[in-house]
Amino acid sequence: MVNMLDKYNSHRQIRNMSFEEMDLFAKDIRKFLIENVSKTGGHLASNLGVVELTLSLYKVFDLDRDKVIWDVGHQAYVHKILTGRKDEFSTLRQYKGISGFPKKNESIYDFFETGHSSTSISAALGMARARDLNKKRYNVVSVIGDGALTGGMALEALNDVGFKKTKIIIILNDNQMSISQNVGGLSTYLSKIRIDPNYNKLKNEFNTTMEKTSLGKGVVTSINKIKGSIKQFIVPGMLFEDMGIKYLGPIDGHDIRELSRVMSMAKDLEEPVIIHVITKKGKGYDFAEKNPNKFHGIGPFNCGSGEICSASGNSYSKVFGEEMVNLAKEDKSIVAITAAMPDGTGLKEFSKMFPDRFFDVGIAEQHAVTLAAGMASEGLKPVFAVYSTFLQRAFDQVLHDVCIQKLPVVFAIDRAGIVGEDGETHQGIFDISYLSCIPNMTIMAPKCLDELRIMIRWAVNQKFPVAIRYPRGGEDKDIELKPLESIVKGKWEILNSQGNIAIIASGKMVEHAKKAQDKLNSMEIKTTLINASFIKPIDIKLLESLAENGYKILTIEDNILIGGLGYNILSYINSLGKDIKVINMGFKDEFIPHGDVDILYREFNLDAESIVQNVIKLNNL
Amino acid sequence: MVNMLDKYNSHRQIRNMSFEEMDLFAKDIRKFLIENVSKTGGHLASNLGVVELTLSLYKVFDLDRDKVIWDVGHQAYVHKILTGRKDEFSTLRQYKGISGFPKKNESIYDFFETGHSSTSISAALGMARARDLNKKRYNVVSVIGDGALTGGMALEALNDVGFKKTKIIIILNDNQMSISQNVGGLSTYLSKIRIDPNYNKLKNEFNTTMEKTSLGKGVVTSINKIKGSIKQFIVPGMLFEDMGIKYLGPIDGHDIRELSRVMSMAKDLEEPVIIHVITKKGKGYDFAEKNPNKFHGIGPFNCGSGEICSASGNSYSKVFGEEMVNLAKEDKSIVAITAAMPDGTGLKEFSKMFPDRFFDVGIAEQHAVTLAAGMASEGLKPVFAVYSTFLQRAFDQVLHDVCIQKLPVVFAIDRAGIVGEDGETHQGIFDISYLSCIPNMTIMAPKCLDELRIMIRWAVNQKFPVAIRYPRGGEDKDIELKPLESIVKGKWEILNSQGNIAIIASGKMVEHAKKAQDKLNSMEIKTTLINASFIKPIDIKLLESLAENGYKILTIEDNILIGGLGYNILSYINSLGKDIKVINMGFKDEFIPHGDVDILYREFNLDAESIVQNVIKLNNL
Repeated sequence: MVNMLDKYNSHRQIRNMSFEEMDLFAKDIRKFLIENVSKTGGHLASNLGVVELTLSLYKVFDLDRDKVIWDVGHQAYVHKILTGRKDEFSTLRQYKGISGFPKKNESIYDFFETGHSSTSISAALGMARARDLNKKRYNVVSVIGDGALTGGMALEALNDVGFKKTKIIIILNDNQMSISQNVGGLSTYLSKIRIDPNYNKLKNEFNTTMEKTSLGKGVVTSINKIKGSIKQFIVPGMLFEDMGIKYLGPIDGHDIRELSRVMSMAKDLEEPVIIHVITKKGKGYDFAEKNPNKFHGIGPFNCGSGEICSASGNSYSKVFGEEMVNLAKEDKSIVAITAAMPDGTGLKEFSKMFPDRFFDVGIAEQHAVTLAAGMASEGLKPVFAVYSTFLQRAFDQVLHDVCIQKLPVVFAIDRAGIVGEDGETHQGIFDISYLSCIPNMTIMAPKCLDELRIMIRWAVNQKFPVAIRYPRGGEDKDIELKPLESIVKGKWEILNSQGNIAIIASGKMVEHAKKAQDKLNSMEIKTTLINASFIKPIDIKLLESLAENGYKILTIEDNILIGGLGYNILSYINSLGKDIKVINMGFKDEFIPHGDVDILYREFNLDAESIVQNVIKLNNL
Repeated sequence: MVNMLDKYNSHRQIRNMSFEEMDLFAKDIRKFLIENVSKTGGHLASNLGVVELTLSLYKVFDLDRDKVIWDVGHQAYVHKILTGRKDEFSTLRQYKGISGFPKKNESIYDFFETGHSSTSISAALGMARARDLNKKRYNVVSVIGDGALTGGMALEALNDVGFKKTKIIIILNDNQMSISQNVGGLSTYLSKIRIDPNYNKLKNEFNTTMEKTSLGKGVVTSINKIKGSIKQFIVPGMLFEDMGIKYLGPIDGHDIRELSRVMSMAKDLEEPVIIHVITKKGKGYDFAEKNPNKFHGIGPFNCGSGEICSASGNSYSKVFGEEMVNLAKEDKSIVAITAAMPDGTGLKEFSKMFPDRFFDVGIAEQHAVTLAAGMASEGLKPVFAVYSTFLQRAFDQVLHDVCIQKLPVVFAIDRAGIVGEDGETHQGIFDISYLSCIPNMTIMAPKCLDELRIMIRWAVNQKFPVAIRYPRGGEDKDIELKPLESIVKGKWEILNSQGNIAIIASGKMVEHAKKAQDKLNSMEIKTTLINASFIKPIDIKLLESLAENGYKILTIEDNILIGGLGYNILSYINSLGKDIKVINMGFKDEFIPHGDVDILYREFNLDAESIVQNVIKLNNL
């Protein structure tokens, strides 16, 4: 059978396809997606859900004029396949290969880069207002999931959209999930619309109404009787209409005819419109339909069995989750918070065992942090488990709501350092900087899995905010590191003392430093390896003693240098007034692209070999 | 006539007051507020608006059990007067006096500290969930303005409230303004409720309905006819009900009987409730009622005439606004964005002259930044004018939506450095740190008013993100500084070269350094004064030449030291491998309280005298 993708070479072809051809094309795209992502890994389920949606978009809209912004962007694989990147798809998310997210340098049809959730309405609105001021005419479309709609900035944007009535088209891709199961009043609201028995009736009614210029006016009798129950009966999507945005839907997101018809309708309206599209995450691939969570972001897998190729072994996330369960058993005041990441952060087991003490707030990091502050102020011990890159969203809440009041909230910062394949939008290389500048904050990093257990246990019992940052994945199995036996605030650990060059390493970087030390030993360059278990406060006593004893100092952290641990160490050393040689290793002032973690550490000079080179340099100073 | 405040000594008295007494008491409180704030300055209008609201709260709720969280907190003066701080009111917002915001160290009835907008629902929800887990029974009330409700995190919180049905009481203090005029679809929605002719009818109807356990069910005929126009007619506040929150209102926020009645009702419900209260900002003081904007945050004024005591003269905000108008006349692609601060940021005139190119998005900094990114990506030149402390809210958007794509958005960062009387929640002392760690960001600071003009003009014509930070207020009139004549990216200005101690100062600190230099001259200590007009990138050529010529270096910035300009300079000097003495001046790792700007610079060692002392120290090294 002919695969339509073989003959496909431009999105312009879609505009002339029949619906029948599009249905067939959708099948071929799904097959291509499953085959490719099974080899490269990536975000599968969300892409399987938007095949018909994407095809319909590019039938109705003209990509050479109109602009489509993909919220989050991990569902833009179909878009990428359709806009010239089919042949590079085997390089997906690999170093120097194509990104898993929209990137302007890949295609002129990637109009705006995304990665974090909930940005697309704001961006689309900005573009649309630029269009209007420039007196041009084209459509701007934001495609946003129901999960992303719970992010505060998406709601801020909706508020603005409805007010100024700028014409944009918002496609609400409602798959009833964010990454994991969806939460929130908005989600309940959307599901009410979906399950309403009047749905089909309303759909038809709505279509006829749409063609009329003015809405009929009626007199309602017995007002008292029709509250509550009537609401959904009258207009699904009234919440959006209340905010000033025309609502169309809900419609079947796998029905290309219906999608195309309603999109065409929206195109002709001169006001903001939201099209509510119901899709199935993982659609067309049994294993993904049944387990969309697992197939959200996945490594290589076997197409036939749906099994993941390599078992991932122990990880920091897993150890964190286990220890949280242990702690919660012992201490009733411990509660856990996640922003739509119960699986990713390792809290699944906790959520099952302690459903009353587990809070998934949706994609809402700001709220999560201040919710934790409220809990802490009433004596609970909240632990907010969050990826480093997503905590960026709550910088102000950490500073303003937690740290000014010095509330005992624990931040379990997963995916700190290089996360790898998700690339520049997701690297966790800023948290040391943005947290260090906040007074009253304590920051720790474990050098091995068991040290994370000890740190969490310590952190939940302090009377001030504590952040613990740890990397994606697990330990390097070739390196054996014993966990700290006890924790004293601000006290570092001397792993071994062999010579007067001190390597001060933090978290994951201790492994790299250990490897480097072994190499340096074979070169007769003797070093002292220090585990900077506390990033803030730094161990000034130890630093003072190093300075007094004439040590040279190398620091290494998997964070941007500016504002990082190394600069704080340098500043303290400088304040001592002695001429101590210091070299700081960390990321330079640039964003780090996607690729394999080890490759990236090598290419950006934070691997063991780079440490060796820097120690040699320091040795010669 | 007896002033009831004279006999007042505990909030417990309110519980036994009659409504008539409360009405009289409200008058006395208003008088007290006007008299006191006319002397100290402060947030007047919003406090005049909540006198009856606060009294009713403390009649219905028991502050010794129940908890009230004041969103933003600048409307908590009445609360402060009622909870033991009447006699200290003359010290309001002064150094070591009482704060203009809730502070736990002032009163056990300040349950949660606020300052930035939109945090109270999250905090209240956290407290309520702690209460439920601790199996206690008390009420948690969040008092939030309609303006604050447009902030994304408040909407995130609403979404969570409605989902888990935790019992909290949200009082929506709807004064139809945030700080300036309100904006947004939500605001339009609220005003629809307010102006509905069926309002009173509904109010009564609603009251009877409330007393029934189940809502009546009716059959509706002619569904087709009743869309749109019927919505408000049926249930005001349906938007909230759609999100799963019981809505009560709207009610008159100056009617103590009505307030008390509805609050009592809410107290008895075992589910989340929002009470929609209509208040008048500035209520009871003619000048403030007519001009609530002016009396939002105000300096000392004449009670009788409503005139502000000291004309404020020229300010950075004003100069910024003027130059924006000039630029906009010349270049049609320039647009301005504010998050509810058209007056404070100096954009009022711009908004009048270029209404189509002016965007007030409400209290929504996150959306504002990504909106700007969208505009920039379509060729506009957006300038987002925002206070340093509020840009903290959009840290992730600056990084993720602007800087990764290197979009030419200009951030006009007002109130950088010490803002003074608003205190620790509002000091603009973190922006250098949180912006410096972001790749692709350029940061500038003008040393005088006219330099701001030149910088803005330069910034809007670059092809990358530029932040310009400038302080509250204006220039020091005793110091004459000529603006830079031209700008070269990353090039600093040598103001004068007198000796081999270099004082590298940024922004406002150039004035302090100039004063210090004059004093040092009289002591025969010769310095070279350098204007670090670029905070990022730093002028490495100049630093190299200073190092080569054996200069000692003092840096000074009105920002936290960690992650700041000084550390970046130190790091570069360190990389040169020479033994150059460096002292960094800036704020230590602590929050800075409220008080007069000059006092704070002196107390926290960033005044001219402190520079003199540090130069002497450096000279002796």
